[in-house]
Amino acid sequence: MAVSNIRYGAGVTKEVGMDLQNMGAKNVCLMTDRNLSQLPPVQMALDSLVKNGINFKVYDNVRVEPTDRSFMEAIEFAKKGAFDAYVAVGGGSTIDTCKAANLYASSPHSDFLDYVSVPIGKGKPVSVPLKPLIAVPTTSGTGSETTGVAIFDYEPLKVKIGIGSRAIKPTLGLIDPLHTRHMPDRVVANSGFDVLCHALESYTALPYHMRSPCPSNPISRPAYQGSNPISDIWAVHALRIVAKYLKRAVRNPDDLEARSNMHLASAFAGIGFGNAGVHLCHGMSYPISGLVKTYKAKDYNVDHPLVPHGLSVVLTSPAVFTFTAQMFPERHLETAEILGADTRTARIADAGPVLADALRKLLLDLDVDDGLAAIGYSKADIPALVKGTLPQERVTKLSPRPQSEEDLSALFEASMKLY
Amino acid sequence: MAVSNIRYGAGVTKEVGMDLQNMGAKNVCLMTDRNLSQLPPVQMALDSLVKNGINFKVYDNVRVEPTDRSFMEAIEFAKKGAFDAYVAVGGGSTIDTCKAANLYASSPHSDFLDYVSVPIGKGKPVSVPLKPLIAVPTTSGTGSETTGVAIFDYEPLKVKIGIGSRAIKPTLGLIDPLHTRHMPDRVVANSGFDVLCHALESYTALPYHMRSPCPSNPISRPAYQGSNPISDIWAVHALRIVAKYLKRAVRNPDDLEARSNMHLASAFAGIGFGNAGVHLCHGMSYPISGLVKTYKAKDYNVDHPLVPHGLSVVLTSPAVFTFTAQMFPERHLETAEILGADTRTARIADAGPVLADALRKLLLDLDVDDGLAAIGYSKADIPALVKGTLPQERVTKLSPRPQSEEDLSALFEASMKLY
Repeated sequence: MAVSNIRYGAGVTKEVGMDLQNMGAKNVCLMTDRNLSQLPPVQMALDSLVKNGINFKVYDNVRVEPTDRSFMEAIEFAKKGAFDAYVAVGGGSTIDTCKAANLYASSPHSDFLDYVSVPIGKGKPVSVPLKPLIAVPTTSGTGSETTGVAIFDYEPLKVKIGIGSRAIKPTLGLIDPLHTRHMPDRVVANSGFDVLCHALESYTALPYHMRSPCPSNPISRPAYQGSNPISDIWAVHALRIVAKYLKRAVRNPDDLEARSNMHLASAFAGIGFGNAGVHLCHGMSYPISGLVKTYKAKDYNVDHPLVPHGLSVVLTSPAVFTFTAQMFPERHLETAEILGADTRTARIADAGPVLADALRKLLLDLDVDDGLAAIGYSKADIPALVKGTLPQERVTKLSPRPQSEEDLSALFEASMKLY
Repeated sequence: MAVSNIRYGAGVTKEVGMDLQNMGAKNVCLMTDRNLSQLPPVQMALDSLVKNGINFKVYDNVRVEPTDRSFMEAIEFAKKGAFDAYVAVGGGSTIDTCKAANLYASSPHSDFLDYVSVPIGKGKPVSVPLKPLIAVPTTSGTGSETTGVAIFDYEPLKVKIGIGSRAIKPTLGLIDPLHTRHMPDRVVANSGFDVLCHALESYTALPYHMRSPCPSNPISRPAYQGSNPISDIWAVHALRIVAKYLKRAVRNPDDLEARSNMHLASAFAGIGFGNAGVHLCHGMSYPISGLVKTYKAKDYNVDHPLVPHGLSVVLTSPAVFTFTAQMFPERHLETAEILGADTRTARIADAGPVLADALRKLLLDLDVDDGLAAIGYSKADIPALVKGTLPQERVTKLSPRPQSEEDLSALFEASMKLY
């Protein structure tokens, strides 16, 4: 179990220049997206670089929900720049793009698919040394600052896939609650749903000793190794924070206590799922995001249709946990209780429905779209959604309950309408 | 907050050769002590090195409760060997010795006191790159496999002091429950008390935002930064395991569930205190061990008088927590409850005595010597014990309650007899 270094506190972003200097960096790449590039988090980081006399170039062409093409552009930039360190200021899209740029610039003769997860890529282990990467998250969801995973839309197949290797884990995450004040409420909600599902999925994932195959050489073992005694601690702790603070954080941008706690919960859940993995909500979310038609999420300032990652993940959660609860029902019931369900009289056989009800109640309270139908999908799309889920075996095989294509189809269908 | 990589499982020691190969190591130093060098944990590691074609040299001259002199010998060995990786198989003494050997062999022009904590050493930050170090703990106490601390007896002053830097943290800890079966019961008890106090002290340590000074450059900040939201999680979790399993682990060597859990708890508490720090039990323990007269602990096969570290730590714990509880009494009461005290009718003002009673009960149940008097100290020794505590400011300043020399004197006096 590997865990990144993180530093938490209001204003820690101002220390990034000193950290880079301490690392001996002389030529730094700062990655961000266009919207953020004009906002305080990036400005604070740039000021710190200037103040510490660090040479840098800014790449602000990160795509929100990146693609193989947008990854490649960032990689080209990184290769040309011959940087000796990276700083990613942004949400998961920015941090993931920066991980990919660092990886391929450090391994310039690799084909893009070499490090992409099987079955679409070759899933080669990373043996080249990477440059230091400092991640400064500005959303409270992905936990990407703590994980060895980078996710993107693979356009040739219209499906989201990933690169997963401990090697791409950021050297340091600077968790700065000051960056949470400017998030619009839907960004807080959707990124919070990502935290919620990271916690729920990693806690209910197949236990590490039941996962197979178990490659004899440790370097060949996946970053996602199944639930384990360490990830369990993080998952439960993150879930408790979500239960306590998510609604407050969404509803009141001035509730710094709630927003700070969600920012920390994002990292905590990241440490958990970064070791344990996620399963069906995430596996099924990738086609939901990847096959988006015209849906444009409120509060996201982008020039293309977009189902935000956290939304695409959470919409199937009631159906997924109803399906998985027959394995490890106690854990499902425990999480329902943490989310506020009264489980005193619940039967263990009802663990799935009890958790699903708790989730539906939370989503309704937070004005979430009423299922996949509300974001533009119909029954006719299910075969394509299932087809897009099949290549996600990196995560779907961590589901505690194996699933057939028919099962996936039924899960999508059950997720069309929630309330 | 920085956390080492750990891997847990029966037989993970057999993977050490592959891990070294994956790291590209070609010339490895394996450190251990004389007793262990003939036992299965070392044999298992050596077999794995041989099987994977790794060249290695064995240094088995580690001293149980190391000294500056024993550190220097190991450092000399490391310098001559020009190793590209280290494996430490043993308890805290071995892992700490190996950390020091790696550090000074990587920084050959440094004086020994350069990296030793102030006020005895200069406490310089480490900026040289170290070689990979894989730690394989064979006791369930120090958590040294997860921390950036190395402790030794500084013979010129007859006092235990330390080197503390994130840079010396092992690259990987292999937590192998197979190594717990051969521990004699006193070793299980005393190393378990170390876990207990790591958890209690880090949970009650001065919170990170109240610690001072707070150096503006992150590299100058101490490894021990005060209690914080991450260390709290580990401390409480480790404490729950101690409460559930320590007695079983001591009493029955065949209770692999209990011994495995204590082995994991040692690492968990290590992750916690490695970030947060410890305070008075540890600060006061160093002279208790360092000034040992004739006491020879049962079950420890050494040729010199010895107060095992965990014993020297726990004997003052009832007095210490009675003293500190007026700061953060809720936390003291919470830990008492975890340890089995009935706190339903306890007043918050009684948090200290309630926790102290719970500790005394545990120690009595486990046949622990009745206080400092039982291990050879009398009132006349108190001035020397206080004098030996004063240089421990690395940890004593993390006490939630500041302490005068008179306070320390009273704490030693109150610890002379426990029952």
